[in-house]
Amino acid sequence: MEPDQQQELGQQLRVDSVRAAAAAGSGHPTSSMSAADLMAVLLAEHLRYDFTDPARPGNDHLIFSKGHASPLLYAMYKAAGAIGDDELLSFRRLGSRLEGHPTPRLPWVEVATGSLGLGLPTGVGVAWAGQRLDGRPDRVWVLCGDSELAEGSMWEAFEQAGYEHLDNLTAVIDVNRLGQRGETRHGWDLDAYARRIGAFDWHTIEVDGHDVAAIGRAYAEAVNMRGRPTAILARTMKGRGVAVVQDAEGAHGKPLPDAEEAIAELGGVRDIRVRVQPPAAAAARQATPAERSGASLPRYELGAKVATRAAFGDALAAVGAAREDVVVLDGEVSDSTRTQAFAGKYPDRFFECYIAEQQMVAAALGMQARGLVPFAATFAAFFTRAFDFVRMAAISRANLKLVGSHAGVSIGEDGPSQMGLEDLALFRAVHGSVVLYPCDANQTAALVSTLAADHGIGYLRTTRGGTPVIYPPGEAFPVGGSKVLRSGGDDRVTIIAAGVTVHEALIAADSLAADGIAARVIDLYSVKPVDTQTLRAAAEATGSFVTVEDHWPEGGLGDAVLAAFADGHQAPRITKLAVHIMPGSATPAEQLHAAGIDAKAIEGAVRAMVDADQAAAR
Amino acid sequence: MEPDQQQELGQQLRVDSVRAAAAAGSGHPTSSMSAADLMAVLLAEHLRYDFTDPARPGNDHLIFSKGHASPLLYAMYKAAGAIGDDELLSFRRLGSRLEGHPTPRLPWVEVATGSLGLGLPTGVGVAWAGQRLDGRPDRVWVLCGDSELAEGSMWEAFEQAGYEHLDNLTAVIDVNRLGQRGETRHGWDLDAYARRIGAFDWHTIEVDGHDVAAIGRAYAEAVNMRGRPTAILARTMKGRGVAVVQDAEGAHGKPLPDAEEAIAELGGVRDIRVRVQPPAAAAARQATPAERSGASLPRYELGAKVATRAAFGDALAAVGAAREDVVVLDGEVSDSTRTQAFAGKYPDRFFECYIAEQQMVAAALGMQARGLVPFAATFAAFFTRAFDFVRMAAISRANLKLVGSHAGVSIGEDGPSQMGLEDLALFRAVHGSVVLYPCDANQTAALVSTLAADHGIGYLRTTRGGTPVIYPPGEAFPVGGSKVLRSGGDDRVTIIAAGVTVHEALIAADSLAADGIAARVIDLYSVKPVDTQTLRAAAEATGSFVTVEDHWPEGGLGDAVLAAFADGHQAPRITKLAVHIMPGSATPAEQLHAAGIDAKAIEGAVRAMVDADQAAAR
Repeated sequence: MEPDQQQELGQQLRVDSVRAAAAAGSGHPTSSMSAADLMAVLLAEHLRYDFTDPARPGNDHLIFSKGHASPLLYAMYKAAGAIGDDELLSFRRLGSRLEGHPTPRLPWVEVATGSLGLGLPTGVGVAWAGQRLDGRPDRVWVLCGDSELAEGSMWEAFEQAGYEHLDNLTAVIDVNRLGQRGETRHGWDLDAYARRIGAFDWHTIEVDGHDVAAIGRAYAEAVNMRGRPTAILARTMKGRGVAVVQDAEGAHGKPLPDAEEAIAELGGVRDIRVRVQPPAAAAARQATPAERSGASLPRYELGAKVATRAAFGDALAAVGAAREDVVVLDGEVSDSTRTQAFAGKYPDRFFECYIAEQQMVAAALGMQARGLVPFAATFAAFFTRAFDFVRMAAISRANLKLVGSHAGVSIGEDGPSQMGLEDLALFRAVHGSVVLYPCDANQTAALVSTLAADHGIGYLRTTRGGTPVIYPPGEAFPVGGSKVLRSGGDDRVTIIAAGVTVHEALIAADSLAADGIAARVIDLYSVKPVDTQTLRAAAEATGSFVTVEDHWPEGGLGDAVLAAFADGHQAPRITKLAVHIMPGSATPAEQLHAAGIDAKAIEGAVRAMVDADQAAAR
Repeated sequence: MEPDQQQELGQQLRVDSVRAAAAAGSGHPTSSMSAADLMAVLLAEHLRYDFTDPARPGNDHLIFSKGHASPLLYAMYKAAGAIGDDELLSFRRLGSRLEGHPTPRLPWVEVATGSLGLGLPTGVGVAWAGQRLDGRPDRVWVLCGDSELAEGSMWEAFEQAGYEHLDNLTAVIDVNRLGQRGETRHGWDLDAYARRIGAFDWHTIEVDGHDVAAIGRAYAEAVNMRGRPTAILARTMKGRGVAVVQDAEGAHGKPLPDAEEAIAELGGVRDIRVRVQPPAAAAARQATPAERSGASLPRYELGAKVATRAAFGDALAAVGAAREDVVVLDGEVSDSTRTQAFAGKYPDRFFECYIAEQQMVAAALGMQARGLVPFAATFAAFFTRAFDFVRMAAISRANLKLVGSHAGVSIGEDGPSQMGLEDLALFRAVHGSVVLYPCDANQTAALVSTLAADHGIGYLRTTRGGTPVIYPPGEAFPVGGSKVLRSGGDDRVTIIAAGVTVHEALIAADSLAADGIAARVIDLYSVKPVDTQTLRAAAEATGSFVTVEDHWPEGGLGDAVLAAFADGHQAPRITKLAVHIMPGSATPAEQLHAAGIDAKAIEGAVRAMVDADQAAAR
């Protein structure tokens, strides 16, 4: 397309952004207008994409890290013929796929954005897996805002991409100078950004973001760059082309004051159609015969003491042998999480993220967008660092497996900073998530295999220390299930536990049984979804529950049990045991005792409930 | 102290680190040994600190961002005479103040560390408030690891400190080349770090971290540097001084194989005492007469429609007028959170953090360590970005006020990326936290004042749109309280709501009343702690609850209500209404309806419970 046509296309993208926001009565047209020329040139000349087949191998990847510029993205889709004008004008309306910020409800959107600082690290994941595994000539283009350069996650991404020489990645940075409430830190000082990004071993290009010829040259330079990712720093004007909002403060995130006037000022409505160039022929990833045939999982003998984190590591390696689509990411703690077993066997599919949990989760998100099945692991506590990305992954309808080791006070001496004590609450509060907390090695192995097979966001919580194997190899552990470990006709209380507390519950139940008090014991390994049916049967049979978890009292196992009755059913009487003090350093056994979640505490809680029943019956 | 004595002191710090870890049977002696010379020189010559009076104005601040090097820190305390050898050897034992990672259980520790990437941004907060408000010559020294330079939060800190010209801040970076499981990205390439950090407008110095004379010169240069913070990049060896672990992989986080042999190799046990120089005389911050006299809060008329975020902004400015110790931080969204009212009146006490939520929360953490009362605000959704720092703040026993705006689906068209839908779950799962969710402007103002007055971590959830004022000005809203808004002798169901759903609940109750169904309505504005007494009375009176919240079903209001009965009490029958679909874009009213949490949904749930009761009675 000729430069003057590209310029016209830029104006069309502006006009359509203004129209979409006007129709919606909200949105971010000015943030779209600054980047319109950048995206016009990309769409017309440099993007390789088949809009009729978003899954086509070889397609480029376009990620709007500045997701609030969604009107611009949708205007591009219209120019490419992917959506019609009617749909464009449904922007932000109930039921429309054109949400305020892009989501994969649109087939051309790979990951939801709208939380700043997410798109670039996700693009790193897409590019990294492309470089390592697919060897295809597809490129990753990420449109970034200047405001979001304040986010640390962007610098994790610059570091990771520079270090991995991801020359298939281009960051297009729309430096429009204005954030939400005023000027950014560095305004139009492109050099300030170039100095920083260049220091992370990126190639940088500074350009006038409204000069289509210069933009085109920058893209060509980026495509031809070898060994380094490229950042194009484009000096632009927010609201470009409409005097009343151009480079003006106070014009963020709202429709233009007079849309008709603005459209006239921009030269009126156009209907330029771009024939976006499709990618060169590329083969889809070949599935191996073994793939999806089921892994040959490790088997552990009953009674052996094995840490569930170790079983996770072994099982992950076994799943990796069966499935070539499984990739593993770790935050420089693979000797602790035990992903090292996988890393040793499948180094090409192991991605070392160093201590950058946000980049790790974002890279996993990017890799699943390529159809891979990523497992990302670190200490359970350190997923708190990346939780925004997990939240956003749910909006992306992502297929993401996260594994947190060193759960709870049972880690012992290292103290509270290393203890995952809120991870169940966090991961339960993710829309559509699955939360699993195994207590033994065979159970862990089975759940790892299930996680790999099922689509969605799954979290597995593992334990640092060894726990006895209580299930035989090969036993089935469906998501949403539970195991009744002790049960009889005269059960007076049900003890519900998961992970390390299952073993405490069994000790307590045996001690109580010796004293003539029968207690049912349920291993609630599937914390979300919970096995409502088994819990309701236990409530009916025993009337009283004691729940016990190595987690803060809020949002974990006990709350999950209570919630199983919160659809109008009568809940049983419940005593919830959980970590009720701020722990310090101590041995694992001392920690469980001090927190009030060991066998002794369970036994005491059961006795108190039985005594209360007897007193009530008198 | 002479250089050779400083060297001896370094050896003593190594020996004591080895001894502490040996006594504990765990810990990180090798990570302590790399930094021993750096800390010996600091303690002997450059730190200005009165160990007998940790609260003394003018004291320097020493933060171990690499908190796992706690044995080194404790060895320094011993050398300074602050603790004895017996206490040193209590390291990591039950009840000891010398935890695996430092916490403020020790009076010389200002903030807990142990999650990497936290100490430097926290130090930025300490230095920033010092520069702006205190004008004292105290310095902030932060010992950083090289591994943690992968964390984005470190780069948020470099950017913020460079931009603010914090020349009272020195980062001492212990580049020992080895992370937990192997070499770091850049190994001993000090230039790689210097290039990056220098690009963020820091002064950098590269030094041999075992050459005490060179270290001393670097510290002097840092102290004399004007206009820029200084990073001292020290090339060190992990496990320095003991051949079997020196610069060796596989020696992270464990005691030395033979402590006695190692101590001998290090020249044996020493007992050098350092007379740490106290700070120059400095005045404590002057409290104004108005301070702590109580703010003159804004007053809103009954029936007016006011957004709680707006009331928060007004109340915060009022509290700021009364209390000079209140400081405010915002993540470049002050026009949305409404902290702009405070910023306009008290610009010296307003800290713009740009879009860097981790740095914002960490800076607040640092400022409270100076005795200030920080309020940090952003969208509720974006606190998910900084949650690790909130978690760690609880371990710090911090006094921190966090305010999240744009809660829930009620924000409307912007879509799920901007909606805080998991914030109640997150903040409830913080040890000792207070979680408040007001429904009207006068209630908001009262709660802001309470938050400022009470010590601890408090979270306030505000709403984007206007809601009717239903409480008169001046009404009291204690933490742990609730308000019964509708009540009668024939109540058949209790509706429990907070924030925006209170108004839906009132509409539903009125509609039900017109139909002869009496429903109690409780405004549970204190989500943590909950008003157990009022809930139990309601359970006794009505037998059935409907809870309704603009939040995912997990970990929020409904779970808080259920948990109020989880100490062995019989809970009432509960129907929990919460956001059960992934929202898209729509108007606020459409969102509440689609999520199943509007008046209509509440009415339906109440009718279903009443019908079930009648069916059961038949």
